[in-house]
Amino acid sequence: MNTGVVTFQPEEKKITVPKGTDILSAGIAAGVYINSSCGGEGVCGRCRVIVKNGRVVSEPTGRLTREEIEKGYVLACRATVIEDAEIEIPPASRLEKEQILTEESKAERLFGVFSKAVDIEKGKETKERAIFSHSPLATKIFLKLPSPTLKDNISDLERLYRALREHSKIPILQTGLANVRKMGRLFRESRWEVTVLLGKRNGTTEIVLIEPGDTSHRNFGIALDIGTTTIVAELSDLNTHKILGIKATHNRQSGYGEDVITRMVYASKEDGLEKLHHAVVDAVNELIFALAVENEISLNEITGVSMAGNTTMLHLLLRVDPAYLRREPYVPTANFMPVIRAAEAGIKINPRGLLACLPGVSTYVGGDITVGILASGIDEARKLTMLIDIGTNGEIVLGNKEWLVCCSSSAGPAFEGSGVCSGVRAMEGAIQRVEIDPDNYDVKCSVIGGVKPVGICGSGYVDTLAELFKAKLIERSGKIIEGAKTNRVRTGTEGLEFVLSWAKENKSQEDIVITQTDITNIVRSKGAIYTAAEILASKMNVKMKDINKIYLAGGFGNYLNIEKSIWIGMLPDLPRKKFEFIGNSSLTGARFALLSYDAMAKVQEIARKMTYIELSVDPDFMHAYTASIFLPHTDASRFPTVMKKLSL
Amino acid sequence: MNTGVVTFQPEEKKITVPKGTDILSAGIAAGVYINSSCGGEGVCGRCRVIVKNGRVVSEPTGRLTREEIEKGYVLACRATVIEDAEIEIPPASRLEKEQILTEESKAERLFGVFSKAVDIEKGKETKERAIFSHSPLATKIFLKLPSPTLKDNISDLERLYRALREHSKIPILQTGLANVRKMGRLFRESRWEVTVLLGKRNGTTEIVLIEPGDTSHRNFGIALDIGTTTIVAELSDLNTHKILGIKATHNRQSGYGEDVITRMVYASKEDGLEKLHHAVVDAVNELIFALAVENEISLNEITGVSMAGNTTMLHLLLRVDPAYLRREPYVPTANFMPVIRAAEAGIKINPRGLLACLPGVSTYVGGDITVGILASGIDEARKLTMLIDIGTNGEIVLGNKEWLVCCSSSAGPAFEGSGVCSGVRAMEGAIQRVEIDPDNYDVKCSVIGGVKPVGICGSGYVDTLAELFKAKLIERSGKIIEGAKTNRVRTGTEGLEFVLSWAKENKSQEDIVITQTDITNIVRSKGAIYTAAEILASKMNVKMKDINKIYLAGGFGNYLNIEKSIWIGMLPDLPRKKFEFIGNSSLTGARFALLSYDAMAKVQEIARKMTYIELSVDPDFMHAYTASIFLPHTDASRFPTVMKKLSL
Repeated sequence: MNTGVVTFQPEEKKITVPKGTDILSAGIAAGVYINSSCGGEGVCGRCRVIVKNGRVVSEPTGRLTREEIEKGYVLACRATVIEDAEIEIPPASRLEKEQILTEESKAERLFGVFSKAVDIEKGKETKERAIFSHSPLATKIFLKLPSPTLKDNISDLERLYRALREHSKIPILQTGLANVRKMGRLFRESRWEVTVLLGKRNGTTEIVLIEPGDTSHRNFGIALDIGTTTIVAELSDLNTHKILGIKATHNRQSGYGEDVITRMVYASKEDGLEKLHHAVVDAVNELIFALAVENEISLNEITGVSMAGNTTMLHLLLRVDPAYLRREPYVPTANFMPVIRAAEAGIKINPRGLLACLPGVSTYVGGDITVGILASGIDEARKLTMLIDIGTNGEIVLGNKEWLVCCSSSAGPAFEGSGVCSGVRAMEGAIQRVEIDPDNYDVKCSVIGGVKPVGICGSGYVDTLAELFKAKLIERSGKIIEGAKTNRVRTGTEGLEFVLSWAKENKSQEDIVITQTDITNIVRSKGAIYTAAEILASKMNVKMKDINKIYLAGGFGNYLNIEKSIWIGMLPDLPRKKFEFIGNSSLTGARFALLSYDAMAKVQEIARKMTYIELSVDPDFMHAYTASIFLPHTDASRFPTVMKKLSL
Repeated sequence: MNTGVVTFQPEEKKITVPKGTDILSAGIAAGVYINSSCGGEGVCGRCRVIVKNGRVVSEPTGRLTREEIEKGYVLACRATVIEDAEIEIPPASRLEKEQILTEESKAERLFGVFSKAVDIEKGKETKERAIFSHSPLATKIFLKLPSPTLKDNISDLERLYRALREHSKIPILQTGLANVRKMGRLFRESRWEVTVLLGKRNGTTEIVLIEPGDTSHRNFGIALDIGTTTIVAELSDLNTHKILGIKATHNRQSGYGEDVITRMVYASKEDGLEKLHHAVVDAVNELIFALAVENEISLNEITGVSMAGNTTMLHLLLRVDPAYLRREPYVPTANFMPVIRAAEAGIKINPRGLLACLPGVSTYVGGDITVGILASGIDEARKLTMLIDIGTNGEIVLGNKEWLVCCSSSAGPAFEGSGVCSGVRAMEGAIQRVEIDPDNYDVKCSVIGGVKPVGICGSGYVDTLAELFKAKLIERSGKIIEGAKTNRVRTGTEGLEFVLSWAKENKSQEDIVITQTDITNIVRSKGAIYTAAEILASKMNVKMKDINKIYLAGGFGNYLNIEKSIWIGMLPDLPRKKFEFIGNSSLTGARFALLSYDAMAKVQEIARKMTYIELSVDPDFMHAYTASIFLPHTDASRFPTVMKKLSL
C-alpha cells in the first residue's frame, strides 16, 4: 500500500493520502483547518500538531521545544505520512470555522442600499448622497406573453423581446442558444406565463434564464468578501434587499501561505494555481451551500454573486495566473473583469447565474477598497474624508467627491491575529477588549461570544498595547519593562512576555501571552498604517487636521477602540468625533453592487477616478515610518492629548 | 453477432450496423448518398439499390417492376440488413456530391460587396445603392501594445481595451474568462505584439481571440446557403473580400424527407431532431474542411460563418425544435438569432469563431429571402421591383425602398430536380438546356460540365416543357399528344412519356425521359409561382406591367432561359429586359453579411420592414392557381407575345 489513512482528532476526520504527503496538506485535503503562516516552509512554527498514533517522518526544527517533541509535537508542514496515523490538532494550531459576529448576522432585517446610504454622512451632506435604484445584478420578471395568432405570429424569441421592451427600456438584449433551444416547448407548456431572469452584463442585458410560471418572488444573491485570511458570504433576497444570513470561514489558501506574496509564489509551482483556486472556491461554495440550506433556498434560486477582494484574491478566484502582480511594474491581468457566469469560476449557484467581480485600481488596491469607498460614501463627500482599511495590507483612501487617491502599506497580518503568538481572528473566543489596572496589573478581558478565551484578535491587540503603555509596563519604544510587581511579566522562550490569560482560565491549554516580538510586530503594523495615512495626506498637501472624517474598516468584528488606537499612534490625534468605525466595508459595498447596478456603475467610476500612489518607491516613506515605530510617535508633539491623558 | 457489415459499391464504403437497420439509414451513416424524397416511407421509389451479395429482408412494394426485383433491386428504405451485405447504388439512385458550377467557382477573383453592389441597378439608380463598408463579422487587428511601466501599470485587459479604443470607436467591448486567463503570459511571451480578433455580437464587440504576433493577414470566413436540398459553402478572405472557393453538397437531411414539412415531422420522432441536425452540420463541416484543405488554410484561421437558410433549416442547424413551425399559427422559435459561437451549433471552425444566422420574417420566409433582397438591392430601389426565388418553395418579394411584401408558395421540388422521373440538381451531367426541332423532333441537349447526361435539372425542365409546347407535342393543358412521327413519344410504366436522351447516349443506363406526371408536376409548379406573383401584386394594387424589374433567383446553376420561362407561363409576359437571372442570391447575400456589418444591419432592417402575406388562407389564390395550370395560362390574352411567337 502506497497510501496511509490520517485521522485528525478530535473531529475524527479521516483521509487517505499517498505516503510522503505532509500532514498540513493532508489537513487541507480533509477540510481540517490547521494554522500556517509561512506557506508550509517550516518557518512560522504555527502548525504544531501532536502525533497520537502511528509514525511520521519529521524534519528537525528549532520551532519546537524538547518538551514539545517529547509530547509528540511535530510541525504539520514538515512531517510526512509513512503509515496510518492519528493526529491531534491542539486548539492553538486550529483554525476554527469562524462566525463573524456582526450586527447584521443577528437578525433577518431589512437592510437595503437605501437605508445604509442615508446613514453615511449625517447632517447637511446626507441629502447629497446618491440613492441607488433597485436594480440587482440579476432580476426576475414575470411575464404573461400573448399567445401567438395568425395575425401575430412573430417568433417566440421576438415575442419575448417585445414583451421585455414593453416592460422596461433595454437597449441591448442578448440571449444564448441554450435558452432558444428550450423556449418553444417551455412557452407552450407554461401557457405563455414565464419568469425571465435578466442579468446585467457589461453594458448589455442578458436573458439569463427562462422558467415556467411565476418564480419571480424567489431570487437570491450572494455578496462575497474574499479576504486574504477570511471569506465572508452574505445571502440576500434580490427582491426585498433583506439580508437572510452571513457566514464566514477561513480562506483555506492560508495553508499555502499567509500573505498574498507567498501565495503568488506558490501559484507559480506546479498545480499551485489550481490548488489556490480550489482552496478559495471550495470555501466559497461551502458558505453558499450552508446559507442556502439554512434558509431553505435551492442553489438554483441563487442567480447572482458580487465579489469584492484584493487583486490577488480576484486572480486566484478566477484561476488567472497572478505571476505578473509581483514583478515590477506590478501589473494585474485584469482589474475590470467582465461579468461572467459564476460557474466559469467554479462557484456553485444556478449554472447560468452571474458573477460580478468588483473593479480594483492596481495590484495593491483591489475591489475590496473601491467598494469600501462606495460603502462609506467618500466619493460623494463634499468635505475631505479618509478611509483606513486595515487588513494584511493597510489601504488608505483620501478624497472627496472631486478626487480620490489611495495607497497601500504592508501592515502585516498582526491585526488579523496572524504572525503573533496568541493571535486569532475576530471569532468566538477571541479577546477583543482588554483593560489593565495600572495599580495592581489585574487584567479584564472581554471575549467574543462570552466564552473562555482562545487567543487575542486585532482589536484585543490594540487594547493590550494601549493598556500596557498606559500602565507603564512598556516603554515608548515598545520594550517591556522588567521589574513590575506582577507575575504576568515573565521571561518566555522568546524573551519577555506579558500574560493576558492564564491557561487555567482559558480553552487553549496554554497561557495567552503577548511577547516582546508581538509588541514589536504590532508597533510596526500601526506605524505602517499611520505613516501611509500621513504620507498620503502630505503628498496631497493636506494637513491631517483638515480631514473632516476618518472611517476605519477591517476585520475587527464589531469593535475597535478608537481612543486606544490613537494612544498607540495608529491613528492621528484628532478630535474623536471625526472617527467612525464602519466594520467590514468591503462586504457592505459588495452588497450594494449586488443590489443596484447604479452602485456597480459607481464602483467602476470610483475605480477609474482613483489615483494609486506607490509608497514603496517614495523616499519620504522610510524616514517617516522609522519615526512612527514608537509609542505613540517619535515626535510626541503630534499626540498632545495622548501625552496628557497618559501623563507622559 | 447482432450487427452486419454493409458494403456500398462502387466506392466500397463499409459500415457496421445493428441487424434490422434499413439500408437507407446505413447509407446515411456511411456517408453514401442515396436518393430519397419521402423520408423513408417507401412511397417515392427513388432509393432503388441492388443487393449484390448477402440477404436483406425487403417489404413488398409497387415501386419496383418484376424485372427490377429479379435483378436484385430493393427500396433502400424498406429493406433491412440481417447479415453482411454488398449493396450497389445505381447512378439514378445516387446523390453525387455536387459542385455548383457558378462563375465564382471558376477563378479566385476579387468579388467584394462593393463591385456587386454597384452592378445591381443600371443607370441612374446605381448611385443610390448603398455601398457597404468593410466590416466583417470577425476582424483581426494587429496591436503593438506599449509595455507596462511603473507610471503606466494599468492591467493587461485595460491596456488591451485602451489600445482597441484608440484604434477604433467601440462602445461596448466584451471578452470572456478564457481570454483573460491566458492574457498575462501571452502578452509577455509575444512581447506585447498581438493580434486580436474582434467579433460583432448583437450590438456589442467581443474580443473573440488573442493570438501572439501578427496573424492579421490570415482571417477567413464562410458564407453558407443551406437549402432544403443543397448546401453551398463559400470561403472568402475577410481582409480582401477575395472568394477563395465554393463547394456544394447534397443536404443529407433529404434522406429523412424531401421537403421541410416531412422533416419537421421527422424531427418529432425520437432522436429525429438530433439526426436532422447532424445531417446538415456534418455536410457543412465537410464542405468547410474541403475548402480549407484546398486553400491551405487551417480551420483555426476561419473565424466567422454567416448562414442564410429557410426558417426550418435555421432551426435544424441550431438543433432548435421546429415543432411549432408546422402548427397553426406557424410560429418559429427564432427569426432573429443572436450571434453565437459556431461551435455551439457543431460547426467546426476556430472553436471561438462566430456564427451569424441571418434573420427571416416568418416560418415560410427565412433568411435566404431577406439576404436575397439584400443581394438584389430591392430595398434600395426607387422603382417597383420583384424578386422570385425558386426553390422547393417559391418565394416572391415585391417592393422598393419604401416598402417590402413577400409571400411563399409551395412550388414543389420539381425545379430542383426532385419528384420528377429523371430529375437531378444543377450539377455535372445535368441537362440544363434543351432544344427540340419542331419538324423532326430531334433533341439537342446542353449538359453541365459537357459530359454525358445523367438527368434533367430545373432549367432543363423549363426548356423541355417550353420546347415540347412549341413543337406541339403537348397540349395547352400539358397533355402529351399521341401520334407524332417520333419514337421519342412512347408509353412507359406510368403512361405517356417523351425521351430526351437514350440510354446508349447517357450515363444513367436508362433513357432520360419526361413523363406525363412530370409535366403535370412542372405545370403545377410554374402555376404556383406565377399565381403567387400575381396575387401578391394584386393585393398591393400593383399591375404586373408597372413592375420595373423582376429578379429571378434559385438553384438553377448559371442558366435559366427567361424567354422559355415566359412561354410556359411561369413568368408574366412583360418586356424581356425587365427580367434578370441573378443565380444564388441567398449565397451572395450571406457573403455580403459576412463581409460587412452594414449589410448585416441592412438584412435586419429588411426583415423588420418586410410584411409577410399568407397566401394559403387567401380565397383568391385557389381560383387564380386553377386558372394558371395551363400553358401558358387559361387566359391566353395575358401572354400575347407567347401566343404570337408559338403561333397558337
